[in-house]
Amino acid sequence: MEPVNVFDYEALAQANIEPGAWDYYQSGVDDEVTLRANRAAFERIRLRPRMLVDVSTCEMRTTVLGTPVSMPILIAPTGFQCLAHPEGECATVRGAGNTLMVVSTSATRSLEDIASAAGGPLWFQLYFYGRKNAESLIHRAEITGYRALVITVDAPRWGRKERAMRSSFSMPSHLVEANFTGEEDVEEYAAITWEALDWLRSLTSLPIILKGILTAEDALLAVEHGIDGLVVSNHGGRQLDSVQASIEALPEAVEAVDGRCEIYLDGGIRRGTDILKALSLGARAVLVGRPILWGLAAKGAEGISHVLELLCAELELAMALAGCPTLASIDRSLVKFV
Amino acid sequence: MEPVNVFDYEALAQANIEPGAWDYYQSGVDDEVTLRANRAAFERIRLRPRMLVDVSTCEMRTTVLGTPVSMPILIAPTGFQCLAHPEGECATVRGAGNTLMVVSTSATRSLEDIASAAGGPLWFQLYFYGRKNAESLIHRAEITGYRALVITVDAPRWGRKERAMRSSFSMPSHLVEANFTGEEDVEEYAAITWEALDWLRSLTSLPIILKGILTAEDALLAVEHGIDGLVVSNHGGRQLDSVQASIEALPEAVEAVDGRCEIYLDGGIRRGTDILKALSLGARAVLVGRPILWGLAAKGAEGISHVLELLCAELELAMALAGCPTLASIDRSLVKFV
Amino acid sequence: MEPVNVFDYEALAQANIEPGAWDYYQSGVDDEVTLRANRAAFERIRLRPRMLVDVSTCEMRTTVLGTPVSMPILIAPTGFQCLAHPEGECATVRGAGNTLMVVSTSATRSLEDIASAAGGPLWFQLYFYGRKNAESLIHRAEITGYRALVITVDAPRWGRKERAMRSSFSMPSHLVEANFTGEEDVEEYAAITWEALDWLRSLTSLPIILKGILTAEDALLAVEHGIDGLVVSNHGGRQLDSVQASIEALPEAVEAVDGRCEIYLDGGIRRGTDILKALSLGARAVLVGRPILWGLAAKGAEGISHVLELLCAELELAMALAGCPTLASIDRSLVKFV
Amino acid sequence: MEPVNVFDYEALAQANIEPGAWDYYQSGVDDEVTLRANRAAFERIRLRPRMLVDVSTCEMRTTVLGTPVSMPILIAPTGFQCLAHPEGECATVRGAGNTLMVVSTSATRSLEDIASAAGGPLWFQLYFYGRKNAESLIHRAEITGYRALVITVDAPRWGRKERAMRSSFSMPSHLVEANFTGEEDVEEYAAITWEALDWLRSLTSLPIILKGILTAEDALLAVEHGIDGLVVSNHGGRQLDSVQASIEALPEAVEAVDGRCEIYLDGGIRRGTDILKALSLGARAVLVGRPILWGLAAKGAEGISHVLELLCAELELAMALAGCPTLASIDRSLVKFV
Repeated sequence: MEPVNVFDYEALAQANIEPGAWDYYQSGVDDEVTLRANRAAFERIRLRPRMLVDVSTCEMRTTVLGTPVSMPILIAPTGFQCLAHPEGECATVRGAGNTLMVVSTSATRSLEDIASAAGGPLWFQLYFYGRKNAESLIHRAEITGYRALVITVDAPRWGRKERAMRSSFSMPSHLVEANFTGEEDVEEYAAITWEALDWLRSLTSLPIILKGILTAEDALLAVEHGIDGLVVSNHGGRQLDSVQASIEALPEAVEAVDGRCEIYLDGGIRRGTDILKALSLGARAVLVGRPILWGLAAKGAEGISHVLELLCAELELAMALAGCPTLASIDRSLVKFV
Repeated sequence: MEPVNVFDYEALAQANIEPGAWDYYQSGVDDEVTLRANRAAFERIRLRPRMLVDVSTCEMRTTVLGTPVSMPILIAPTGFQCLAHPEGECATVRGAGNTLMVVSTSATRSLEDIASAAGGPLWFQLYFYGRKNAESLIHRAEITGYRALVITVDAPRWGRKERAMRSSFSMPSHLVEANFTGEEDVEEYAAITWEALDWLRSLTSLPIILKGILTAEDALLAVEHGIDGLVVSNHGGRQLDSVQASIEALPEAVEAVDGRCEIYLDGGIRRGTDILKALSLGARAVLVGRPILWGLAAKGAEGISHVLELLCAELELAMALAGCPTLASIDRSLVKFV
Repeated sequence: MEPVNVFDYEALAQANIEPGAWDYYQSGVDDEVTLRANRAAFERIRLRPRMLVDVSTCEMRTTVLGTPVSMPILIAPTGFQCLAHPEGECATVRGAGNTLMVVSTSATRSLEDIASAAGGPLWFQLYFYGRKNAESLIHRAEITGYRALVITVDAPRWGRKERAMRSSFSMPSHLVEANFTGEEDVEEYAAITWEALDWLRSLTSLPIILKGILTAEDALLAVEHGIDGLVVSNHGGRQLDSVQASIEALPEAVEAVDGRCEIYLDGGIRRGTDILKALSLGARAVLVGRPILWGLAAKGAEGISHVLELLCAELELAMALAGCPTLASIDRSLVKFV
Repeated sequence: MEPVNVFDYEALAQANIEPGAWDYYQSGVDDEVTLRANRAAFERIRLRPRMLVDVSTCEMRTTVLGTPVSMPILIAPTGFQCLAHPEGECATVRGAGNTLMVVSTSATRSLEDIASAAGGPLWFQLYFYGRKNAESLIHRAEITGYRALVITVDAPRWGRKERAMRSSFSMPSHLVEANFTGEEDVEEYAAITWEALDWLRSLTSLPIILKGILTAEDALLAVEHGIDGLVVSNHGGRQLDSVQASIEALPEAVEAVDGRCEIYLDGGIRRGTDILKALSLGARAVLVGRPILWGLAAKGAEGISHVLELLCAELELAMALAGCPTLASIDRSLVKFV
């Protein structure tokens, strides 16, 4: 039967994808404590719905850094999408329709090719492989029409995905990181700092978003460094195990920032009610990672469209049942921790 | 052997009922977090029983909105009872004896037929399908002797019962919503608001009860709008998943209302001790849903009688063992959250 | 191999006892929430042991209501011991050695026979079947040398042991409640009150202990009524389901009484560390129920001796490892709730 | 495949070691509540990582009581290592390389032999078998170059390892406690006190560390008695069951000591993130017990080297991903209890 929720796409995807690659996508690091926590934390948050509000229509349109989007659901950057489908990121961006997609530095299609296939707005996710490389990538992103840079800050090194190690997965040799130019300075990889960020800030007029912030302290520093947005994220449980679930870290970041930049969230979003909880705790939008890969592996662009439709419909229904006809009506009083 | 508790009726019912219909009755929405929470929350409440009180008799008679009832246990409105038994709601009301039954708009027997078969008091549960339809139903309920209106406020749309979707359940074509007249304005369905409620209030002198309130804020608004009673309810986990368990929401509603209207509770009542906990947290009575359907499916009217007897006997025993010879002696000091 | 702890006796006993009788002994009431809570609550208490104290000897002798006992471990009253072993309570009292035993009204050997077989002190547990019967039993207990009365106050009616009901257990006809005389007034059974207790108090100079107190309120009333001791108990999870675990209720009783009478605890004691926790929370001694029945069913008097030896040795070791050479050195700082 | 974490060594070791000896090493006491708690407690601590710090190198060198060590990971004293490998402690110390090893009184190789094989610093763990024996052992440790004494204070008696009892394990007769001289006064064993400790203190100029402290009270006494260091430890769950997990006890000890002596931690360390948590809660270093035995049993000295490498690499990675380029940058703000 037709998938009824995004978990159904998880099962379909697994049947369509090589086991080692599946483990690579699905695994967290070490004991996967954070991977599990990302989901479990949502279950500890209860909704407090309001009744007798006119919800004959629920309006989900919003903006992210000024760019209009049809719903507060964005596509998270994930690498190596050709593992999941031969057309990789180009299939994803077609399936995305007018949904904002964040394209990964580790894409297996070039940022230019992806932009050509895109119908909606794009942001470019940057891994920092030295200043020369960054300058070149940012320039390419700018002239191709990417609207913001998402700097991943939680990966000065790579976490150990033991599940993937055990299945002896290695990236197939025909898959290339299509944005790589040979200028990458791997030595610089771990050395991205607030100072390097200031330099990046001076280099471009594109808005800059930091992805991977998990504390009030860093959220505050981001504001002080003139950052435009934050993604509260633990990299899908793939970097440091036993860090906070992203939804657990969201409130402290929101409180510290106090409206001075936009805050998004990724990590464990599987249901419309998860999104509603994130919005009520102060996220402006959420990013969805693995479910997009599931849709891609299961049915290509069409699978992605359907995954996004499912989440959109679930959020719309959740807003209606919670008494929230607009995004502005969603606030902190809608949730309670148990 | 004879069933010893209501859970035994659950097993008997399942054997008697078509699998799709069973899933329709049993399922919650989405991941069924709230469905499970409704039960688990009762287990986190401990009783603090008092000793050496004369409990040679325990008095359970009370009134609900002035109507005398033999015990603080009412029959919750549930739809489509002909799915469970050929005589549907008419069997239920006969099994109910002198217990108050809330008849659903979605009954498969007409409200008049049910009233003819009734031995006890009736309330009418109203889904709001526009003003014309409401006016007509309320008029019918009034002249047929229904004593109050129970307006369901948590269903501006229908939650997705995925378990039922997976078993491809659809309502058998011979089952009709017997109270439907063709006047239903489905467009208006989601638009029931406090304003519409004021109009309803002006339309009838019957007491009005709101079913589906889960927050102090809405409980307070209900008082301000002159409502006579509230059912703290999450629709048996069938509307918005991951909302609070109803017993968890009860205290804030009770505190907000502060005695200005009556408060009832449904959701997860399976034991006499559950009822005792609800009463001690401020409910005037509880409504029982699925166990009634189980009794109906298992043994028709006789099954319902027995389910009610079991719950009545359990409550009476619980009151005795807790040192509560009267309902008035049940108060907040009887429970402790762990 | 030789049993190494009391749980080993549980398995041995089950092999030796008829299934229905086993269910009768083992079961709690209803969903057995409290039965499980009695054990689980001990696991949530952490010990905070002290080091570098001279524990070359640990002294466990104490007194209960002035009667010297070799350790703060007493035998709880349990009925119908001939179900477990042909010699019933007479085997138990022989196995008890010099340990204080509380003999049940529902014993299958007469209180006089048990006293004849006893080597240690005895208390008599009284179910109140009217004043005439109580007067007679108390008189017999007094002249036979029983040193205190333990009035069970949590059983104005009997809880429903559904597990036992399902195995269709009924007491074998050859088993008689050997203390019954025909004078029992069953009508009076549920009517034991503080007033009846004052009458009992005036009837005898024996110390009076109430068994089944679970709240600070009742503990305080007990003091006001001149009671000598309390057993904080939920009747082994066999009366009102979902009441507090007895070890959870102990602190409030201890605080309320503030030293004005002695407090004992039963419910879930299986380990020396359980006893140490109870003592540190203010119990003067604990009573052990089911493990005694296990010893009795497994090996008769010898089994009981061994169960008591195991618990005694475990407590002694726990005291040594916690840095407590005397009972007086055990205080509230030894435990922490998690 | 090559082990990827220390848990892999657990499986390898089990295959290489006789079942009774395995149970002896692995078991905790009684119900193993504390054994499990030691691990579970780490999972309830969340890391709060900081980003955009230069972590191109993470410096792990530190000192313990003035002795430089390459990382804050030490080898805990464990006895009878010839059970795991024919060369026992001599293999361990070779595998330890320059890592500090704490040699047990119950070693199956003499403290002199172990010192001869050692490449790194050594501490000597002392069980107190009377003053004469202690004097002799301390003298031998001093002249052999041991740099500190680690007095085990949580073992005035031995806990009951029921799992090992059930597998009828007894120490093979050819295994001897190689440091024993016949001077042991077993009578004195349980009598080690603060007074005896003062005598030990006066006997030697070696630094003295107490192993087995679990409370603020004892930590404070240790400071007052001039102790140089503490190991917060519950003896790997092998002494008193249901005591606090060692990581749960660490904060109170750290707070009480307030920098006046060094504090180390053992118990449940299996991951680099566990070590990071211990350091952030105030431990200067951690000691690793069972994983060392696993490495020894699996592959001898080479296995130990690899276990230490794995832990070292995991800690280094965890520091990098948490934004901690130095040990000094690790503080209390890095963790949060959930």
